[in-house]
Amino acid sequence: MSTQTVFTIGRQFGSGGRQVGKHLAEKLGIPFYDKELIAISARDSGLSEALFSNADEKATSSIFYSLVMGNYPMASGALGVTEMPLNDQLFLIQSKTIKRLAAEGPCVIVGRCADYILRDMEHVLNIFIHADLANRKERAVRVYEVPENKAEDACLKADKQRANFYNYYSDRKWGMCRTYDLSLDSGKLGIEGCVEQILGFEQLWMKNEGKAI
Amino acid sequence: MSTQTVFTIGRQFGSGGRQVGKHLAEKLGIPFYDKELIAISARDSGLSEALFSNADEKATSSIFYSLVMGNYPMASGALGVTEMPLNDQLFLIQSKTIKRLAAEGPCVIVGRCADYILRDMEHVLNIFIHADLANRKERAVRVYEVPENKAEDACLKADKQRANFYNYYSDRKWGMCRTYDLSLDSGKLGIEGCVEQILGFEQLWMKNEGKAI
Repeated sequence: MSTQTVFTIGRQFGSGGRQVGKHLAEKLGIPFYDKELIAISARDSGLSEALFSNADEKATSSIFYSLVMGNYPMASGALGVTEMPLNDQLFLIQSKTIKRLAAEGPCVIVGRCADYILRDMEHVLNIFIHADLANRKERAVRVYEVPENKAEDACLKADKQRANFYNYYSDRKWGMCRTYDLSLDSGKLGIEGCVEQILGFEQLWMKNEGKAI
Repeated sequence: MSTQTVFTIGRQFGSGGRQVGKHLAEKLGIPFYDKELIAISARDSGLSEALFSNADEKATSSIFYSLVMGNYPMASGALGVTEMPLNDQLFLIQSKTIKRLAAEGPCVIVGRCADYILRDMEHVLNIFIHADLANRKERAVRVYEVPENKAEDACLKADKQRANFYNYYSDRKWGMCRTYDLSLDSGKLGIEGCVEQILGFEQLWMKNEGKAI
């Protein structure tokens, strides 16, 4: 199977969105970026992985917190920009990394506002994977070994953090249909069903391109 | 092609969601209900079509408006319930109609909170069709003959009204991914592409049924 497309995947916690992206990338023989972006952004910038790891998919902390932590304003910005909260600087660095990787060719990128960062690029397909809470709790316990009595909380908190991050750095709304080209309930389709559905969408899209609704 | 499924379709104004539903129903040889629901609900209840038409996909008007219009409280409720705003009574009647039609067999139902009304039923596939504003404006002018300088306003106002109606009568949020099983950008796929994608989803769903994510 060959593709020209960069796939971005937003996902609810426990929906298997990461796994969908991984299997999609394997099936197409293209690179897959999720946590991998942390190490690559660190390498690109010369900053430590720990810095990116701490800020991963988190919006800028409150000014009060930043002042207490001594990271606002940053004495000397990594991008030469001072007076900018640390997380915002890290976001800009990661954005450059994401643009560079997408420009290199087809790939799958999970989370991290990739759809928004790549908004001016052609051949980008933006996907959101979700599932009902019961399915996500079950998966959180089975795959991520979250204690059963903490599973609901883990799902809701992770989603809240992802939504905050996305809504802070983009002008779109996380989890709204219109933010994505395709959104799927993985509880209905399973991981492989989602992969099939995404491949089907891409083919229909290529066939239709240019025509009005 | 045969199916056991009841398809519900939510849609942004100008996205072609109605047309997607119509073509899907034709392809599957099953009934299609959109504005048809007005006449059927009127027949079911013995009330006038004009009443349902005026209230179609509108949330209850404000108490002030209802008092002025003399329809709050209704002197004698159509369901024998007094002290209930007229639109709420009409919604209950239409809900009964939708449940009856869905119980009769596979069909396609557009809008009118059908997904929420049928939430306890099996084999219901909930779909949302959307597209970017430029595509929707173009379609509104071409298909619905909306004047070009009014097209944007028509799209935004219709969506606002649909969202108000849906959010008022359900405990879900109109246009959020998690409200639906599948959401599609018809600007990317076109009408026929959306139909293909929905049929693909249904097949993958039937194949997967019961398995965990």
